[in-house]
Amino acid sequence: MTSMDDFWAVIPAGGSGTRLWPLSRRSSPKFLHDLTGSGQSLLRATWERLAPLAEERVIVVTGQHHAEAVRAQLPMLHRDAVVTEPSPRDSMPAIGLAAAILERRDPGAILGSFAADHVITEVEAFHGAVREAVVLARRGEVVTIGVEPTHPATGFGYIRVGEPLGVEDAPSGRRVREFVEKPDAATATKYVESGEFRWNAGMFVVGATTLLELLAQTHPELTATLRIIASDPRRISDLWPTLPKVAIDHAVAEPAAAAGRVAVVPARFGWNDIGDFASLATILAEQDGAPPLRVIAGEQDVVAIDSTGLVAADSGRAVAVVGLDDIVVIDTADALLVTTKERSQDVKRVVEELQRRGLSDLT
Amino acid sequence: MTSMDDFWAVIPAGGSGTRLWPLSRRSSPKFLHDLTGSGQSLLRATWERLAPLAEERVIVVTGQHHAEAVRAQLPMLHRDAVVTEPSPRDSMPAIGLAAAILERRDPGAILGSFAADHVITEVEAFHGAVREAVVLARRGEVVTIGVEPTHPATGFGYIRVGEPLGVEDAPSGRRVREFVEKPDAATATKYVESGEFRWNAGMFVVGATTLLELLAQTHPELTATLRIIASDPRRISDLWPTLPKVAIDHAVAEPAAAAGRVAVVPARFGWNDIGDFASLATILAEQDGAPPLRVIAGEQDVVAIDSTGLVAADSGRAVAVVGLDDIVVIDTADALLVTTKERSQDVKRVVEELQRRGLSDLT
Repeated sequence: MTSMDDFWAVIPAGGSGTRLWPLSRRSSPKFLHDLTGSGQSLLRATWERLAPLAEERVIVVTGQHHAEAVRAQLPMLHRDAVVTEPSPRDSMPAIGLAAAILERRDPGAILGSFAADHVITEVEAFHGAVREAVVLARRGEVVTIGVEPTHPATGFGYIRVGEPLGVEDAPSGRRVREFVEKPDAATATKYVESGEFRWNAGMFVVGATTLLELLAQTHPELTATLRIIASDPRRISDLWPTLPKVAIDHAVAEPAAAAGRVAVVPARFGWNDIGDFASLATILAEQDGAPPLRVIAGEQDVVAIDSTGLVAADSGRAVAVVGLDDIVVIDTADALLVTTKERSQDVKRVVEELQRRGLSDLT
Repeated sequence: MTSMDDFWAVIPAGGSGTRLWPLSRRSSPKFLHDLTGSGQSLLRATWERLAPLAEERVIVVTGQHHAEAVRAQLPMLHRDAVVTEPSPRDSMPAIGLAAAILERRDPGAILGSFAADHVITEVEAFHGAVREAVVLARRGEVVTIGVEPTHPATGFGYIRVGEPLGVEDAPSGRRVREFVEKPDAATATKYVESGEFRWNAGMFVVGATTLLELLAQTHPELTATLRIIASDPRRISDLWPTLPKVAIDHAVAEPAAAAGRVAVVPARFGWNDIGDFASLATILAEQDGAPPLRVIAGEQDVVAIDSTGLVAADSGRAVAVVGLDDIVVIDTADALLVTTKERSQDVKRVVEELQRRGLSDLT
């Protein structure tokens, strides 16, 4: 097994998770919560998963309002290891800034970007995939990890996998033919049946300098600005607001794939991005011995009669559910949500309505 | 219009209303609550409805744990006008004790018994029916008020109406052929289509002495004991526990009907006993301008998206409901219920389960 001394884990910890309201709030986004009842927050679980590979070499990029909570959950991080964004600018500026910081520290640094709010099971398989990805990244590839689909999901993008790369120490590595957007159900079924596609889990492993060079091809000004901030962190407050909001997929991954510069390590492990309560309920239902109505986060009494779905309760009150299938009940100290798995996507409309009513403090 | 000086209104205020948990509790039963958003509790609304007929002549019979709350809601009542039962013994001992007390005070007293937790609209029609019932009761009849059915309800008993009595000042009065139990749906439809049947709203108007004489025919010991307690109220604590639990329907109304001693005043007014959240939701949906998702009891913010049903919220928290039809959400400070109109009857199973778990303080 080769050394991972050049590998740095970057954890972008952003997004308010409005479809997980009222568990997730702008002031307390989902990565700070233990949504799955694992005993630790999604952020902490992400760190625990990466520490065996990256050891001390972990950087979290987060909003300035969440920096304190991030440091509290990850007290082992050096102060400089929590990079704060003055305002959300999507994934490219966040990951790009980390790359610019790492490039200055170690021109050969390999950066792996892993969202703070994903759930991964079968960690050994994940580690194996990352190790192979680092090998490929050292060769100048932009490397993504392609998760083997377990069902024709319509909520994820897909990666179309090409020919094997034949690289020693990275035997799974293949060329990426293309990234494709979230498909409809029929297309998703075709993708999964073809065996050619993997889920795009949004994980990228790439040399810090390689990433910035590729970014410079499509966004030279953004790249230059990120390097200025890395060299003089005091400039962030005046320069950050000038940056465009852009995702790493559009800025780097898709153009690089079109140019034949992206590799994928296909891998088989449990993965979910917990986009909404439906996906959370699915994760929980897959756990061993899960009762039909799954209860999380609660110390209190829950009475379920002829019901299935999900109850998340941290208000301390008793909760009773009678005669409802695939119900979602989220019971917090200041807000209650009642919906169904099927309608979980529409929870963001509640957040919008609360903001419209001037009740942003609840969102 | 004849004088009503001999008319006494008796309000039995009992029952824990477990199918309306968690709004209704053993410690705070439904009659103490403003379930319909009228601005006053069901008990207070009952008093307001009866006061124009009975003036100062109102007696409330209630459990000893509720006497203080009853007095607080009805501060105009004389202390003696709140009669407390040491323990629940169903309706006959409660109403019979009121009859025995009234008989001593005024041998010609006419007693009208009206539950504390019913909702009545069209109060003028109700008053007219009671006035006719009093006229008939003075002639020695046991009189009930038969509510004209608006639909083939299966949750109420019915009264089969016979020939007109031809009494001046009570032109609606008819003989009761029989009381019938709650019917199934097909039978209820036949009843309503026949025009022969009225809903049994459990209202009885009868001379106090007449009631006790009829009771003595079926329950001589009970009658004697009630008269002893009325003559020496201090005896209630030792005698009350010896009384049988029996309903006035079985002890008096049905045997008297079989003997041709019961009259009915058919009447047309809005009436409901709010047995469960389905009937509460129905009442609320019938109110003018009711939105699809009806909200009661709440000062707080409720966001409803594509939903119908009932939200009762007095916890002060924001409540959001997304994509649920005929939903029932009852949000109180220490307990939350989520169910459907269709399953409202099963709410009593929640109360049983909480008691089984030793959580009686929540019930």
